[in-house]
Parts: sequence; structure tokens; C-alpha cells
Amino acid sequence: MRAYDCIAKKRDGEELTEEEIRYLISSYVSGKIPDYQMAAFLMAAYFQGMTDRETAVMTQAVAHSGDMVDLSGIQGVKADKHSTGGVGDKTTMIVAPIVAACGVKVAKMSGRGLGHTGGTIDKLEAIPGFRTTLSKVEFADVVNRTGLSIVGQSGNLAPADKKMYALRDVTATVDSIPLIAVSIMGKKLAAGNDSILLDVKTGSGAFMKTLDASVSLAKCMVAIGEAAGKRTAALITNMDVPLGNYIGNALEVKEAVQVLKDRGPADLKQVCLHLAAGMLELSGKGSMEECLELAREALKSGAAFERFLAMVEAQGGDTACILDPDRLPAAPFRHEIKAEKEGYLTHIDTEACGIASMLLGAGRETKESVLDYGAGIILKKKPGDWVKAGDVLAVLLASGEELFPDAEAKFRSALKLSPQRPEAEKLIYGKVSRDGVELF
Amino acid sequence: MRAYDCIAKKRDGEELTEEEIRYLISSYVSGKIPDYQMAAFLMAAYFQGMTDRETAVMTQAVAHSGDMVDLSGIQGVKADKHSTGGVGDKTTMIVAPIVAACGVKVAKMSGRGLGHTGGTIDKLEAIPGFRTTLSKVEFADVVNRTGLSIVGQSGNLAPADKKMYALRDVTATVDSIPLIAVSIMGKKLAAGNDSILLDVKTGSGAFMKTLDASVSLAKCMVAIGEAAGKRTAALITNMDVPLGNYIGNALEVKEAVQVLKDRGPADLKQVCLHLAAGMLELSGKGSMEECLELAREALKSGAAFERFLAMVEAQGGDTACILDPDRLPAAPFRHEIKAEKEGYLTHIDTEACGIASMLLGAGRETKESVLDYGAGIILKKKPGDWVKAGDVLAVLLASGEELFPDAEAKFRSALKLSPQRPEAEKLIYGKVSRDGVELF
Repeated sequence: MRAYDCIAKKRDGEELTEEEIRYLISSYVSGKIPDYQMAAFLMAAYFQGMTDRETAVMTQAVAHSGDMVDLSGIQGVKADKHSTGGVGDKTTMIVAPIVAACGVKVAKMSGRGLGHTGGTIDKLEAIPGFRTTLSKVEFADVVNRTGLSIVGQSGNLAPADKKMYALRDVTATVDSIPLIAVSIMGKKLAAGNDSILLDVKTGSGAFMKTLDASVSLAKCMVAIGEAAGKRTAALITNMDVPLGNYIGNALEVKEAVQVLKDRGPADLKQVCLHLAAGMLELSGKGSMEECLELAREALKSGAAFERFLAMVEAQGGDTACILDPDRLPAAPFRHEIKAEKEGYLTHIDTEACGIASMLLGAGRETKESVLDYGAGIILKKKPGDWVKAGDVLAVLLASGEELFPDAEAKFRSALKLSPQRPEAEKLIYGKVSRDGVELF
Repeated sequence: MRAYDCIAKKRDGEELTEEEIRYLISSYVSGKIPDYQMAAFLMAAYFQGMTDRETAVMTQAVAHSGDMVDLSGIQGVKADKHSTGGVGDKTTMIVAPIVAACGVKVAKMSGRGLGHTGGTIDKLEAIPGFRTTLSKVEFADVVNRTGLSIVGQSGNLAPADKKMYALRDVTATVDSIPLIAVSIMGKKLAAGNDSILLDVKTGSGAFMKTLDASVSLAKCMVAIGEAAGKRTAALITNMDVPLGNYIGNALEVKEAVQVLKDRGPADLKQVCLHLAAGMLELSGKGSMEECLELAREALKSGAAFERFLAMVEAQGGDTACILDPDRLPAAPFRHEIKAEKEGYLTHIDTEACGIASMLLGAGRETKESVLDYGAGIILKKKPGDWVKAGDVLAVLLASGEELFPDAEAKFRSALKLSPQRPEAEKLIYGKVSRDGVELF
């Protein structure tokens, strides 16, 4: 078997055999196939796409390229979720405790921030003492005791994906739906859970800019998951504007705690309830409606909050900061952004908002950047709100006042005001499962 | 400027700026852009093509990546030719002396065999003593004295092409018309001649299998040449069956000498006369018809043969072998291939024929293979001939009888017999110049 023939076949739009795909992945990881041949293959796949069979086989090959996590030490049904990411996305910290409170285990591996803002692991590390690296035994023990645990990805989880992603990142081949699906699902299959609920974000601040693209990605991932024998579904959710009102690591923990106490912003709560219900439904807890009711009850009763508190304690975090979130790391300097004229706030560009929060210290500019857990943005107005000149639109938080001018300029560029009231945007566009696509 | 952006632009079908293309080529040659990024770019170019402006700029960048040959020491108009290659293509050895005899200088750099059979340089080296490496001064001196010289490519001619071709060869990106055009014309522009006549071979044994593809390649190359201020035209010629009757290095010198003595096979002679006329026309020697007449006269008068003899002598070759070609290296073993049944010979597959000659020792299986100058194939029947059972179809020549069985099997696989007389195929399909496409 030769890499050349695999490239030529893909280039010519032919379907690769299972053997060819396995050869490609295993030889690439072992270094037998050089980067330049894989780069040519990936660009050919960008143009020609991949069949369902190709993506299914490639995902399995990627999953098996490293450690397959063994969760057999954890009792009961184990549900996983994955978000394609966005600004202000603190859903995992809310959804996992809800699901655990409803009797389904969540043994979750999460990532650090890839884009402008921190990832779930970065956010949890804003809680003093919280450990995101646990031994296998400890991980299983925390899940068995508290119903959930969130840890960083093990170093040898799907190394083929790590190597391919790094190559795609510098060869303009990231933006391919089957390759994105393989990358996400490769890690999910290796993570060893029984079901997978995908949160596919759509809109200006998401990786998928259009509903069509999001549905395509969702279908591709659901097909891969189901082919691997995992119950898999996807919700398509809005990421046209930041989710919730807080952007920044400690700030997002704070907002997550608000929602877990059945308060917090309505948009964030609604998305979290649906994600939790989706996970519960895949785990056999009833219909989507029934599961939504279970999830609501878990918030209302305080059961979800208790689970979160128990996990923080079990992973060494300072629970005083959860009981009183004002004790979380906070930035010493505040800067208010005021409206210069009146009008309806019609849009907050998510990406510009993410860059502004990075400029304040909440995200990484380079791999080596050190996060400032207290930094970030508090949104005081959201799209649809009427704004008078002089109203505070947002508060910027940082460790030094010199960081404000650039961040303010970037944040202001994210705003759109208009005399016309904007139409309310959908929060959840639809659901993709083995039963098909259902748009709400 | 970043390679990533150049790849993404090409991937998205946008036109790169001149600066971007120059950056891409110069940074690739210097090693600043790694192979994997260039591989992704080349695959994107395979799918998206390149505009005339992009190919023109890239060809100049490729040409200027190494030495630009200075032919100012040679008096008069200097004409170049290039053939896209085929089996039994000994035209350069015939065409160059004809053109020189008509008063146009030919200072030609040629290649070694890339495919199954030897290149012009390999063939000339079958003449004992013939030197294909001359100093710049010597090269100019031979051209000034004899009207022509044929030497091997200098080591530093268009190094960007060498590096890119090696990469394309292992990433399935060779088969792209603009990239082929850039590769050929990059070397031609660096070679410093005033005009360029391209022989674009078409058919089963050629790189371009169809007339359409050949015309596209010819148009692309003519546009590049003319944009660079070189008079450029292309003839589209037949390579569906081997050209002439002799395949092999010394054998092809022998057949070239036959044609230079105004004998030899009609197909080969006709193609050579047209190529020579094309070169003369580009050099201002009159209309195609007038130039054809000049070329015919150069053969008839013996002037072309004399030029060839003079060049061989000037480059240290043994002229006794030219005056009596039976003194050229010859293989000690002969093996006749006889027809097993009667019929019209309708086709000789050129590629299979080339592989058979390689198996006999006339071509290189790997870069390290040593050529057997005497080995090869003499075709006794050509398509259109009526064959009786037992007739000799061809004679194989090799240094050992053990080489015959495999070569015979391969050669026999190249033959097609039929009770129906085949239609005569065109030898020359048309001409592409700055005036457009003219199909004959």
C-alpha cells in the first residue's frame, strides 16, 4: 500500500477502502507517511469530501491511535457532551451537574481554550485548588461518589487527531466538515462514554457560520457515533451573540453558579436545560419533554448545585468560592463602556467580543500566554435591549488600566445599534439524531 | 506575508497577487516554507487551476530561482524546442541540425529520461566520446562554430522546479496543466533562447492523453512564453504509437542519422520537418510553408547531416559512428517477435512498448539504473500494416537472452490485431500560437 495511491484516489473522487484509511492514519502517526503527503491528502479531502464509510473508519482509526479510556470502573450509564465552542460557553459546568443530579454519570474530558477565550478546563482552574489532572482511579472514584467529574484530556488521547489537527491548522484544511467530524468524534470515541450529545454552535461567533453547515456537521458526527455503537445526537444552538452575560474564566464560573442556583440569564439557562435533556434522553431517561422537566427540577431543587459543589470539593477546589462566588479571583480594575447614542442594540459580534476579552487577559494570544482568571467582560445589555446615550453597555475587567483602550476599541467594533427593534433570534435551531433532522 | 494565506486564497479560488506568488516560490526554495504547506498549495492549485497571470508570474519566479543562462556570446537568433516526451522521440537530434543548417542557432539544454526510456542526453551519450557537459564558453563556441550544441541541463537551472517537481511526484499533483506548464516553461525561460517551439505529444503514450488536454497545455505554455517576451508556439503531434521504428539509445541515434541522410521512416521525418519549420517560422524565416521548404532542402542537400556531424565532432564524439552507424554500440543478442495470427496491426501501445524497452536495458527502472546503449526494439511492422502469421513484428535487442521473456510478454501486450484495416491517424493535429489554435 502506498500513500501516493490513497492521495490520487481521494483526488479523483474515489472511495478509499477501510484498509487504505487505516494504513493512512497508522502510518501517519508512526511517521512512515510524511507531513507533505498527509497535507496533500487532506487538501484533496477538503475538495472531494469523504463518504460516511470513510469518516466512520477514519474516526475509529483516529480513536484507536492512542489510549482508549476504560470507564468500566464507573457504575451506570455514562453520558458525554461536546460543544463546537464559542464565546461565553460555560454550559459544561452547568449541564454536567444537572445530568448527574438526574442519575446519569458524567465522566468528562475537556479541552483548554483553542480560540480567543479559555476552555472549560481553564475556567474550572479559576477555582483555587481545583485539580483538572486526576489518576484513572481517582477520576472513576470522583464520578462514582459525586456523579460527575471534569478533567483535562489525557496526553495520549487520539494522538492521530493531535498530529493531523496541527497540520490542518497550517495548511488551510481545518474548514472541512468530514475532517472536523473525524477530529471531534475520534476523541469522543476514545473517551469511552455510552452516549454523546453534541452542541453544534451556529452563527458569526461559531466555527459553523450557517445553519446548513451546522446541520451537515451534525449529521456527519451523528452518523459516525451511531456507526460506532454510541447513542449520538446533536442540538444546533445559537452562537451569533455571546451566550449569557459573563465572558472570562472566573466570571463564567460565577455565572454558572448563578444558573445552578436557578437564577442567571434566561438564554444560558434555556440552552443548558436542552443540552442536559438531550443527554438524559440519549441515556434512556424518557422523551425530550420528560427529560426537560427532570432537568428543570434538578435546578429548582438545588440538586444540580449540590453535585457541582461535591465535584469541586472532590477535585480539591475551594468550595467557599462556590458558596460565595465573590471570593473567586477578581480583576482589580474596572472600566465601563457607555453608549454614545441611543437605539436598539441589535448585535454583539461574538468573535470581536472574544478578542476583546483576550486583550484583557482572559484568553491566550499564544500557547505560552498566562491567563488572568479575573479578567473579562460583563455584558450589561444584550441584543434587543433599548439603550440610551450614556447607558453602561458593558464592564471590562483587567489587571491594569493600560489594557482597556485596545479592548474597548475592539469591543465597540462588536456592537451594532439601530432605531429598529431587532427580531428575537432562536436559541436552539433544531436537533439531529438517528431519526433525522428536526428543525424547531 | 504567510504561506497559510496563499494556500487559503488558492483553495477558495481567488487569484494570488504577484507578490504572493513570488513569496511562495522564493520562500519554498529557501526552505522557509515547508514541504507540507507547498503540498497543500499544489493540491489546491490542482483543483482550482491558476490564472494566466498567476502562471506567468510563477514561471518567471521559477526561472529566476537559479541561474539564468546568458547566451549573449552566441551570434544571431537562437531557437529552442521542447517535447513533452514519448517513446522513440529522437526528434531533437534531427530538428536541431536542420534548423542550424537554415541559419538559426540552436543552443539546447536537454534532459535525461524521466519515464521508461532515455532522454536526448542519454541517446547522444550512446555516441562514444560525446560530451554532454560543456563549460559556458565551450557551449557558446560550439554553437558559434557549428550552428548547434546539445548539452545536459546545468545543475542550478530552475531549482524551484526541481524541488516542486519532486514534491508533486509524491503528492499526486503532477497531473495539473498549469503546474506542468510552469515546470516546462520555467526551465525554458531560464535557458535564455529567443524563441520556443513546443512539441506537445498526444495519445496513449503521451503525458496528455487527449487532444483537448494537449491544446489546453499548449495554450497555457504559449501564453507564458509570449508574456515573457519570447516568441512561442506549439505543435500538437501524435504519440499514440511510437515515433519511427527504433526504440533505444544507440538505435535512435542510428534512425536519426537515417533521417538526416533524407532516408528513414516517413512519420518521423514528417514530424521533424514540421518541428524544424515551426522553429524557423518563430525565428522570422518566413511562413510555415516557406520554412517547410527550407527544412526539406536542408535534408536533401545534406546540410543538416553535416551540421550534426560537426556538432558530434565538436563535442568529442566519434564521428566514425555517425558516418557508419553500424559502429555504434550494439547488443549481442537478438530475438524476433513473430505474429501468431494474421490481421491488420491496428495499434502498438506506446507505454507498454516503452516498458518493454526498459526491461531490455534501454531505460532506467530506478535513478541508479545503468543504461545499456545497444539495447532496444526495432519495429518491423507499424499500425496499418497487414501481417501474416509468422511475420516478424519486431526485433528485441539485449545484452543477455534472459531479458527477452519478460520484454516479449510486455511487448506482445502492446499489440492489437484486427481483420479491419485501421484508419490512418494524423501525425500532426494542429498548431497553437499567439494567433490562436489552428487544427489541421
